[in-house]
Amino acid sequence: GKLRALKRWMLTLVVGVTQAIIAVTCNMATKMLMEAKYDHVYDLMEYHRLSSGISPSSSSASTASANNNDAGYYTADGYLDVDQDGIPDSEEYSSGGTTAMDDVNDHLARHWFNFGKSPYLTFLFYQTLFVLCAALFVYIEPVSGGSGIPDIKCYLNGIDVPRIVEFKTLVCRVMGVTFSVAAGLPVGKEGPMVHSGGVVAAVISQGRTKFWGVDTSFSKFSDFRNDREKRDFVACGAAAGIASAFGAPIGGVLLSLEEGASYWSTNLTWRAFFCAMITLGTLFVVRNQDSKWGQANVEKLFSLGEFTSIGGGSSNFSVWELLLFILIGCLGGLIGACFNAGSEHLTIWRMKHINHSKKRRVLEVLAISMLVTTVSFVMPLLWGRCTELPTDMQDWTNQEKELVANLVPFNCVPGKEYNEVASLYLCEADVAIRQLFHFRETGETDSSTFSSAALFLFFIPYTTLACIVYGIAVPAGLFVPSLLAGAAFGRLFGHLLHKLDHTSGTFADSGTYALMGSAAVLGGMARMTISLTVILLEATGNMQYVLPLMMTLMAARFTGNAFNEGIYDINIHLKHIPFLEPEVPTIAERHEIVAGQVMSTEVKCLRPVERVGIVYDLLKSVGHGNFPIVDTASSGTLYGTASRSMLCTLLQRRAFGQPHDVNNGQHHSSTDGGVDYAELLGPKRLSPLVQWDTIERVYPRYPKIDDVQLRPGDRNCWLDLRPYANTAPYTINETASIQRTYRLFRTLGLRFLCVVNHTNQVVGIITRVDLLPESLSDSIMRGRNAHMARRSSGGGGFS
Amino acid sequence: GKLRALKRWMLTLVVGVTQAIIAVTCNMATKMLMEAKYDHVYDLMEYHRLSSGISPSSSSASTASANNNDAGYYTADGYLDVDQDGIPDSEEYSSGGTTAMDDVNDHLARHWFNFGKSPYLTFLFYQTLFVLCAALFVYIEPVSGGSGIPDIKCYLNGIDVPRIVEFKTLVCRVMGVTFSVAAGLPVGKEGPMVHSGGVVAAVISQGRTKFWGVDTSFSKFSDFRNDREKRDFVACGAAAGIASAFGAPIGGVLLSLEEGASYWSTNLTWRAFFCAMITLGTLFVVRNQDSKWGQANVEKLFSLGEFTSIGGGSSNFSVWELLLFILIGCLGGLIGACFNAGSEHLTIWRMKHINHSKKRRVLEVLAISMLVTTVSFVMPLLWGRCTELPTDMQDWTNQEKELVANLVPFNCVPGKEYNEVASLYLCEADVAIRQLFHFRETGETDSSTFSSAALFLFFIPYTTLACIVYGIAVPAGLFVPSLLAGAAFGRLFGHLLHKLDHTSGTFADSGTYALMGSAAVLGGMARMTISLTVILLEATGNMQYVLPLMMTLMAARFTGNAFNEGIYDINIHLKHIPFLEPEVPTIAERHEIVAGQVMSTEVKCLRPVERVGIVYDLLKSVGHGNFPIVDTASSGTLYGTASRSMLCTLLQRRAFGQPHDVNNGQHHSSTDGGVDYAELLGPKRLSPLVQWDTIERVYPRYPKIDDVQLRPGDRNCWLDLRPYANTAPYTINETASIQRTYRLFRTLGLRFLCVVNHTNQVVGIITRVDLLPESLSDSIMRGRNAHMARRSSGGGGFS
Repeated sequence: GKLRALKRWMLTLVVGVTQAIIAVTCNMATKMLMEAKYDHVYDLMEYHRLSSGISPSSSSASTASANNNDAGYYTADGYLDVDQDGIPDSEEYSSGGTTAMDDVNDHLARHWFNFGKSPYLTFLFYQTLFVLCAALFVYIEPVSGGSGIPDIKCYLNGIDVPRIVEFKTLVCRVMGVTFSVAAGLPVGKEGPMVHSGGVVAAVISQGRTKFWGVDTSFSKFSDFRNDREKRDFVACGAAAGIASAFGAPIGGVLLSLEEGASYWSTNLTWRAFFCAMITLGTLFVVRNQDSKWGQANVEKLFSLGEFTSIGGGSSNFSVWELLLFILIGCLGGLIGACFNAGSEHLTIWRMKHINHSKKRRVLEVLAISMLVTTVSFVMPLLWGRCTELPTDMQDWTNQEKELVANLVPFNCVPGKEYNEVASLYLCEADVAIRQLFHFRETGETDSSTFSSAALFLFFIPYTTLACIVYGIAVPAGLFVPSLLAGAAFGRLFGHLLHKLDHTSGTFADSGTYALMGSAAVLGGMARMTISLTVILLEATGNMQYVLPLMMTLMAARFTGNAFNEGIYDINIHLKHIPFLEPEVPTIAERHEIVAGQVMSTEVKCLRPVERVGIVYDLLKSVGHGNFPIVDTASSGTLYGTASRSMLCTLLQRRAFGQPHDVNNGQHHSSTDGGVDYAELLGPKRLSPLVQWDTIERVYPRYPKIDDVQLRPGDRNCWLDLRPYANTAPYTINETASIQRTYRLFRTLGLRFLCVVNHTNQVVGIITRVDLLPESLSDSIMRGRNAHMARRSSGGGGFS
Repeated sequence: GKLRALKRWMLTLVVGVTQAIIAVTCNMATKMLMEAKYDHVYDLMEYHRLSSGISPSSSSASTASANNNDAGYYTADGYLDVDQDGIPDSEEYSSGGTTAMDDVNDHLARHWFNFGKSPYLTFLFYQTLFVLCAALFVYIEPVSGGSGIPDIKCYLNGIDVPRIVEFKTLVCRVMGVTFSVAAGLPVGKEGPMVHSGGVVAAVISQGRTKFWGVDTSFSKFSDFRNDREKRDFVACGAAAGIASAFGAPIGGVLLSLEEGASYWSTNLTWRAFFCAMITLGTLFVVRNQDSKWGQANVEKLFSLGEFTSIGGGSSNFSVWELLLFILIGCLGGLIGACFNAGSEHLTIWRMKHINHSKKRRVLEVLAISMLVTTVSFVMPLLWGRCTELPTDMQDWTNQEKELVANLVPFNCVPGKEYNEVASLYLCEADVAIRQLFHFRETGETDSSTFSSAALFLFFIPYTTLACIVYGIAVPAGLFVPSLLAGAAFGRLFGHLLHKLDHTSGTFADSGTYALMGSAAVLGGMARMTISLTVILLEATGNMQYVLPLMMTLMAARFTGNAFNEGIYDINIHLKHIPFLEPEVPTIAERHEIVAGQVMSTEVKCLRPVERVGIVYDLLKSVGHGNFPIVDTASSGTLYGTASRSMLCTLLQRRAFGQPHDVNNGQHHSSTDGGVDYAELLGPKRLSPLVQWDTIERVYPRYPKIDDVQLRPGDRNCWLDLRPYANTAPYTINETASIQRTYRLFRTLGLRFLCVVNHTNQVVGIITRVDLLPESLSDSIMRGRNAHMARRSSGGGGFS
């Protein structure tokens, strides 16, 4: 009724707010951890630089920094404030020399340890510490590792992945991702945030959890304790997750619809829309606290920074450059396909050699973390060159000035120079992305904030590392690494074009190419469609990119699909999860298959009134979730279906009658042939001893068959299933085409389907597994005759 | 196979390009017509102004215009170039006086008629002429009137509206809308463009039309000649339509998915995405021809102009203003609800008194057009005041300068003054929208391009006119009028706020309020959800409005839904079209209804082998589209279904056997009891005399039963339906809940469903009509007992 709908909306609102708070907290924690790490490491590096005395251009340092102070924006210590949230220590390092040395010593004294004042060892220590924390959380709850998007995808597809939407998973996932991002691994928070949103929604809507050991259920929310409501809530939560990670509410709604929902439900769309809106609104309010909720900072609205229109009234790209964007899309599709192939091989190898042992998984994480740390530290060292910071920034936007302040000196004179490679490796991934996106190249001069060589030195190793890292036992999103790799690639592409053509302004600025590169690589990996375009549009905040982004993503997807599947689908298939794609598998399109061919004929059936012993043995022996009930009186027509959870509850509650009750004292335990009981019972039914509400109250923790204790005489009792059976299950005729079967399954989100013949007799069962491409090709191998043979033998078989 | 998929993509590409070309052509034609009209009228008005000699401020005219020429942008004749595409006649009217008079006389001499030099009569003449043309096209093809979106919505919902996707409709619709917009009626091109896209897709994918009188079918495309393919193409075309009307490709895809598609198909989404992208790309290329496909003009990218960020790095609104936007949303919802209620009453009245006669419809159009013309002309006259054009426009954007040039003088000194009300009434609707959106109010001075009084004088009459016009017999979209009305309302709201608070800059600029007002009123009328947000975002081009727009639209929808339905749904229901909403009607949620209660029990069944006479009489007597085939040998279990079109084709092709063929010479025409024929035939079947391809080749123009001529002896022949029957139709058990039935219907897009009992005997039929809320409440009135009674009587009835 109305009250229930109101409750649903209220819960959705709570989900939105909660997810926003989680996202903000997680973000702040990550920033604090990273700040502590880089603060310490850069102090040590500065100490070494000053004590070695070889500062190649220290003579001009003071003048330059004076210059910079004139420019009025960044002070010499800007490089410390990685996120502009740090403690403002503005008067230190004002110029090179002994005072700076004292300051550094002061700084170092504040830290509680100094590994022989080695920056590398300190860096390694922090990284390893953080990564160990992340691994620990995954050790506690293994399903909280990885991206989280495939998990939510499976859940929304209708697959019951154990422990995927529980409170413990949420805690481990969020804590884990905080540490894994802080550890500087090439991972993102986006996938885990989507998962977090989903779990928040599930936990809040169900209003109970077994994490606390006690049942905290509020009976007020019991309305929403069923699969469908829970799934709808999870879809809303996933939308909120994207909204919180990217500030992309509409993209979030589309993602959860595209990936999960099997059919477009207007109500659900509205709720997801509302949930994402609330999340974004909460974020908006919280982030603009400092301005007393006045005008918001536009850069804060878009997680990828704001793409401004450079040339006043004209677009940032030419019409004919759309062709170049398509080319970038194709290249990005190739890169994505390589990444996916590499990741697939690695995952297979991991499944064989590592995943079976928790200890090995942790060791792997440690080893890979050390590799990442070493590469991130050694690459800038190898580069070794110092680039001067741009000095004439009068025309630059605030955003660009802030990004300049975030460039990393790394052995260069702070406030005057920076190390290009270090600025990419040794800062937060989203800052690096923004730098690649928003440093515009001024057409005439060939000067750029990042040189081609530096981009190359970053792109190849980083992509390789990201590929290796994806799949280790830490929470790890894929969006940010692929955006960053793609941005480097796109910018590199832009550089090459600029070099080909030395005249000014022929090609779009490198920022635009970086954006297209990001879209191409991300699209090449994830192969999502409309939702990805919308997410990127919302994150960049400039609608003039809609056509280029569409074209790039389309090209990336087509190219990538020529080689392999998207990374999420690869992961799902490797785990052998019976995930049903939205479209009928191509193998079914090419061959004529009917439902009768793919069905499993070993049907375990029950009778409307069944012996307790038979039911008990059946539940013990097979793990099926549903059982058809056939009417033996009318030669085996389908009466209905009974779910495992219901049967277990009935047995546990002893909802069965003694033989003499049923048969009015005669015929008891004499005939088990199953023909005469119906006549004996006639229209007289055992009253339902268990209310439907009672069965459902314990959702989703129904009693297991092992919890059921039968007493000696129980096995001969009769269990009357007729009041409980679902008498109108979806069925399909055995001659129906596989397309029709698949469509029924997928659009209605079924888990099993009874196959009947023309007289409604049960001839088989189809489950999700039977519809996977592998099973379908098996059916084709067996051929039609096998089907006929099986049908005749399997038709009448009871358990 | 692959080739077919390739063909499908190629056709989609052609659809996208064609729709873009249609949109461009239609746009240009409208602009030319409007220009001719306003050119003439303004010349006459200028003539009157100059000859009367009372130009209130003619003394300062020359200096002011010199001033303006200094500002370097608009010349005195700017007001003539309504769309900047006019013939550049730059040296005329350089200052008031006799030379100007000569010029005007020259101008007037160019026109071929002058109704006594009366501007009003001339205006009326043009308006009436154009509106007559529009009405003529609707006279030729009545279904081309109205918005077009409800039609496409119904088509995608699975309803077969006659002639809705035919070439003739396309031509009439596009030509009609060109004239109705040129006639200055408060109508938009958007709805008709969506319809146009859909028809273009249908026509191109089918590759044939009966418009030419000859069959132009290319057999190459025959693959796509079935309901499902055609519907998918129409969905793609509708997306292209939105892309061409608003430059909103993603919004277009969402609209066609949201309104039409019953389930989310990834393949279809991709194709719609591709189609919209191609349309946008084509438009982009065509529109930027003049710049030789270099940098595009950003304003041309967004149909509502570009919303720039005013204050550098800060958003155009404060955080707390979100609450005000919600308030605007609620008010917009109210306005929309009033509009919808008014429109509903008018439509009911029209259906009673006007719609049955084509002549009356044309007369109504003429009368209303005259009303609109008079109001548009009298309002500015009543206003009478001349406002000075802004002179200090140094900081203004090109967009604003161009909009200033489009302000209408109407009896004021051109190039120096303008009439506020005339500038809203007497120019293209999208120019007026842009003026309301993009003239920013500078916080300190209270000066504004449009005063509150002028806005009020526009908003109320225009909304009323739009309500009266919607539903008359011309092609008329609703988006643009409601955007314009909403923009005026929102700007008015902003004005009031500014007056409440005289300090500077507390509230957002009036442009932002105008945008929110547009969203609120449009959302309040159309009640579309996520697609509308995306369309508005894409059309405005500034992502910072995503949260405000979402909140406004959500508030508008909630408020509006408290009173009545969306305008499209109202129209669909008034036409008694069996449109299935995405959600189960609430009446079904409140009562427990089963499929057996709502089904119709008067089932006309056939037997697997049936007498030709019986089939013929059945087809003659009832209009059903499908007939169940029941197996009389096994007491009436469902054998399959046969479609009307198939039966007609079989009869026409004489695919039946003589009695002696069937019965091996014995028993012929003796027993018609229908029990023994099956044994007689046994497994021996008549070979299918008609190939399936033959039946489908004529799609969608199957033979009618009236085309079938039976010969005297035919009636006793046997028609063997077994090779042709669909032996695995979707069925539902009579005890299934209405929710389940509805879901099956809606998600699979069914038109009918056999209701069976436990032994698969046909007990009834459910069609779309049975699932409408009215029918459901009837079923509840009859109650459950009626169902039982009907079931026992109806079970065995044959035709």
